[in-house]
Parts: sequence; structure tokens; C-alpha cells
Amino acid sequence: MITSVSKKLTKSLQEKIDNKTKPIGSLGVLEHIAKQIGAIQNTLTPIIAKPTIVVFAGDHGIVNSKPISSYPQVVTQQMVLNFLSGSAAINVFCDQHNINLKVVDAGVNGELPDNSRLLKHKINLGTQDYSATKAMSSDEYQLALTTGKKIIREICSSGTNIVGFGEMGIGNTSSASLLMSYFTKTSIEECVGKGTGLDNSGVSNKIKILNDVYNLHHNTIETPKDALMSYGGFEIVMMCGAMLEAATLQMTILIDGFIVTAALLAAHALDNKIIEYCIFSHTSGEQGHEKMLSFLGVKPILNLGMRLGEGSGVAVAFPIIVSAIEFLNKMATFKSANVSESE
Amino acid sequence: MITSVSKKLTKSLQEKIDNKTKPIGSLGVLEHIAKQIGAIQNTLTPIIAKPTIVVFAGDHGIVNSKPISSYPQVVTQQMVLNFLSGSAAINVFCDQHNINLKVVDAGVNGELPDNSRLLKHKINLGTQDYSATKAMSSDEYQLALTTGKKIIREICSSGTNIVGFGEMGIGNTSSASLLMSYFTKTSIEECVGKGTGLDNSGVSNKIKILNDVYNLHHNTIETPKDALMSYGGFEIVMMCGAMLEAATLQMTILIDGFIVTAALLAAHALDNKIIEYCIFSHTSGEQGHEKMLSFLGVKPILNLGMRLGEGSGVAVAFPIIVSAIEFLNKMATFKSANVSESE
Repeated sequence: MITSVSKKLTKSLQEKIDNKTKPIGSLGVLEHIAKQIGAIQNTLTPIIAKPTIVVFAGDHGIVNSKPISSYPQVVTQQMVLNFLSGSAAINVFCDQHNINLKVVDAGVNGELPDNSRLLKHKINLGTQDYSATKAMSSDEYQLALTTGKKIIREICSSGTNIVGFGEMGIGNTSSASLLMSYFTKTSIEECVGKGTGLDNSGVSNKIKILNDVYNLHHNTIETPKDALMSYGGFEIVMMCGAMLEAATLQMTILIDGFIVTAALLAAHALDNKIIEYCIFSHTSGEQGHEKMLSFLGVKPILNLGMRLGEGSGVAVAFPIIVSAIEFLNKMATFKSANVSESE
Repeated sequence: MITSVSKKLTKSLQEKIDNKTKPIGSLGVLEHIAKQIGAIQNTLTPIIAKPTIVVFAGDHGIVNSKPISSYPQVVTQQMVLNFLSGSAAINVFCDQHNINLKVVDAGVNGELPDNSRLLKHKINLGTQDYSATKAMSSDEYQLALTTGKKIIREICSSGTNIVGFGEMGIGNTSSASLLMSYFTKTSIEECVGKGTGLDNSGVSNKIKILNDVYNLHHNTIETPKDALMSYGGFEIVMMCGAMLEAATLQMTILIDGFIVTAALLAAHALDNKIIEYCIFSHTSGEQGHEKMLSFLGVKPILNLGMRLGEGSGVAVAFPIIVSAIEFLNKMATFKSANVSESE
């Protein structure tokens, strides 16, 4: 059960910001972020405690039957191993900013070694091929959702108050496109992009395949749960549960790109108050993401044409969120610095 | 004398980036930044050494005769004292990212104490009132320009290879608007914004005043030097010299907002190769900045509606530049991480 963030300090936060030695409003988006996190934490002196990015990984049955990705399925497992060995993009950016990184095996089609960064919650060895059947059973859906919640409860109780979401899963832009189409009522054509790097004919083909998939399941989908069961994947459902729990626990939620936002669309359909806890890190280069963001009525911090996933947009935008908290807590006031105010 | 950056490693830099474990091009702007700094430093392993932001401060005679700012002139001196005591926005953001901060008194109308952050190069106690006469003499112009160069030579020889520019000067959006109008051949109306916070009638009045100023000097201006002498200010001319020297020394130059970009317009008119060394940190909320950027054909990293000056946009964008260097130097390759490449 998500509660709305407190409005009690809205005026005091604005006053605190306006007394800083700067023209009114001159820190732009940083001021909005400071106010949002202040409201989430219901304090004039918010802090960022033990920031953590959780990367949910899972495989997709469709990948082995239809040409919807430019990388083979094994890359999911290989990239998770890359995260565990510490040399992927997300590792580099987390190291740069002292962000804790956790990787969740939500359903990778392959074994993974024990590792301090890895949380083993494999629902299955990838989803079913949704061009033939539903991606997952009701039991699998439920397990993925509750596991996501459990993961966040543990991260929260270890002292984290801000959590970013990332993902890895060859084929998961397809699930995200299908979910986007369902939740935003947008045609598949407008929801499908090149993913990790399809060329134009690859994209056309992906549109055709996903239109067929959409039509196969459309009549059986009445709820967000139905949509998630039909289109997957395990990493998306687990993220959805995790996001809902993070908002319930009044943590600040950092949203990455296309796939993470698709998971949020589902969470938002289940409880739209979640949006009050979300900061959007970047606009992805994956076509479709802008429309998702505009459906949610939000504007991300960065627009750098990134489309890597892994939570990399969250990690790159993170220092800007820190800047917002730093100015709120540390900048002098006109009075403390003996600076004359505007006439 | 600015030399063009080397093209020798363009292909090798691109190959190095494309071998990283990520889809081709998926780090977007970070890839462009990595390539640019690699080219500037002529290496596949660029480094960021002792990053420094230099804030140039100066006063403007016009402020005491015409209502072009919502703050009184004394705020320039007060804000410099705020920088020196360590509690302004630029201090907070520099502290966050371990950026060295230097403040230059280029022409503040008031005495300033000795301080380890302060470089004392006062040309005069503010410029002349350019609604009556030229802002500065030829000697003052020359001294400001060469002092800017000298400051950068010293910063460079202390080991800095990346330098950001910031400014403080009540009234300096007016100088910047006048310079913008001259260098980009744009009407004053399109160059004037609300600065630190004028209301609509204040902006209309500022436009009227600056149109008169423009017409007063227009016929006597034939060179960039003439424009800078007419419109000032000392901090802008000194920045212009500093930027030219930074490019000559093949340092990476970080450009802040409206006023810093106005100084760059002058430097660019003197030697357009300077642009190859510049990274644009943000699009300012000050109207006019976008048109300056489009005149230069560049797109900044951030667009957060910030319009504070002080180099604050540079400081907030800085970690993203670091991210670009970090991924280039530290990310695994497909081969080193045993990840399959795109099919």
C-alpha cells in the first residue's frame, strides 16, 4: 500500500531553497529534485543513504524462435558474469559514484556462480516463448512479484533510502514494447525500436512479429497481471514488485530507460501513487521511451542518447541528484553570507 | 596560436569504444565526449588531471546609472566573499566533485581580502558606464586579455589539463546580450533575457536601454576588440584571453552558460579553432543562450533550466565528463569479458 508523499513541508522547503544565495529558481531541475526528495523523506534536510542500483536479469523464450534481437540469448548470462567480475559499464559508473550494485538472477537461462553481488532468485530458465503461449504461469508471476518485494525489503533494512533500477535480458525491449503498447494504448509500430542494434529491416520484422504476438494474447488480457504474464519477462515482473515495495517503504526510486520504464508502467497501473517516489534519470535513445515518459507526464534529468540498459542512465545521472541534496543542505543563505537580496 | 586537434587517433578511438561490452553507439553523448578528449590529448587513454574551475568576477558601470539588474552592484563583491568563504553554489558543487576552484578579481568595485582561492588582477573598480562611453580603454582591454592568458598558463603548469569557466558580475548578462547581438548578428530583443530575475516590464526596459547602447557604439565597432572594449566587462575579456590560451595549451575547456558563452563568441571570432577544445556543459535558462549555442552549432550535455552562473553548470555536468573517460579507460571489451558480439 503506497501512501502519498507528505505535502506538510512543501512551503518550508521552497522557503529554504529561496533563501539560498542565488536568484529565485536559478538551479532549475535541481530545485525540483531537492523538493521531491525532501517531501519523500518529509524533512528539510534529506540525505542519500547507501545508494543502491539493482540490476534484474532474465531471459526470454521468444529469442530462440524469432529474430527479434541482434545478440544471441547467451549474452544475458555472459553480461551477468561481466557485472559480477566488475567490468561492465554499470560497474564503472557505480564505482565512480560509490553506488552499491546488486545483480538479481530473475530467470537467466544458465547457471551463475556464487558472488557477493549476485542475488539468486531464478524463477525459471527464461520465460516461455510468448509467440506460442503465455510467457509465464500465474504462480511464476506471483513468485517474481513477491520476490521483488522481498529483495527491496532487505535492501531497505540494510540502510538504503534510494534505489535505482536496471536490467539485462536479451529480447527484453520486445517485452517492454508489448507492455508499452498495452498500458499506453499505443500501436506496436510506435512502441518498437532497434533495441541493441537492429537495422531497419530488422525493426520492420520485429514489428511484424510483435504485432502477431499482440494479437495472439490481446483478447485474454484484462488486467496488468494478465499483460505481464503474457509478455514477461521475469526481470520485468520482479522489478515491478520491487518498485511497488520501494514506494511503500517511502524510498526514492530512480528509473532508467525503456525496459525499466515499462516495468514502472505496470507498477503505475497497479498503484499510480508510485510516481511520486520516482525520479527519471534519462531519456533513452530507444524509440518509444519518450512516448512512455510523456504518457507518465514526466521529464528526465538527462537526454544523452544512451540506450545501454543495466541501470547505466541511473548511475550517470546519480551525481546530479546528489548535487540537488548538497545545495539544499550546504549552500549559504543570503543572511548567513551577508548578501543583499533582490530589489 | 591554436592548433587543430589531432585526427590521427579518430579511427582507433572509435574502435576502442566499439569493442567495449555494449551495443554500438549505446553510450550516446558519452562516446562523443570520450572521442573529443582523446583527440585533444592525442591518446587512447585520456586522463582528467587536477580539474579546475576559474570564476572571473567584475563590475559594470551601467548598473549604477540604469535599471538593468534586479540586484545592486555590491552583490558582486558580496558573492565573491561568499565564494572565498566556501558556501556558494559553486563551492558546494566543486567540493562534491573535487574540482579546484579559483576566483579572479578582474574588476570588482570594492576591496577583497587575501585568500588562497583568490587571484587579484583587478583592472579597475568596474567598467565605465557604456551607456555614456566605452566600457574600457584599449590598455585595459589588452591588460585584461593578457592577464587571462597568464592565469591559464599558471594553472596549466600546475598540472591541470581541463579547465571550466564561470563568472560573477551584476549586470553582465547585459554585456553578454550586447556581445551576442554583435557576434551572432541577432536583434537585441532576441538576446535579452531576465538575467538574475527581472520581471516582464524589467526585461522590456532592459531591451530599450540596451538598444540605445547598441546604437551608441555600433558605428565605431569593426573588430572583436572594439566590441569587447565597448560592452565589457573585464571578467568577460579576461575569460576570453584565458580561453584562447587554454586552447593554445591544448587543454579541454568547459563552457558554462550565457555569459561564459558570450566570452567564447568573442574568442571564437578571434580564432574559430577554439571550438574543437570546448565541451558545453549546459543550456542555460537565460533566454538567448540556445541561440548562441545554435550559432556555434553545438549541443550541451545538460538542459536543467539552470541560470545561476558561477560556473555552476560546468560543475554539475563535470561527473558526466568523468564518466566518459572512465568508460573509455575501464570497461571490459567483448574479448576480455568473453561476451558474444552482435550477429
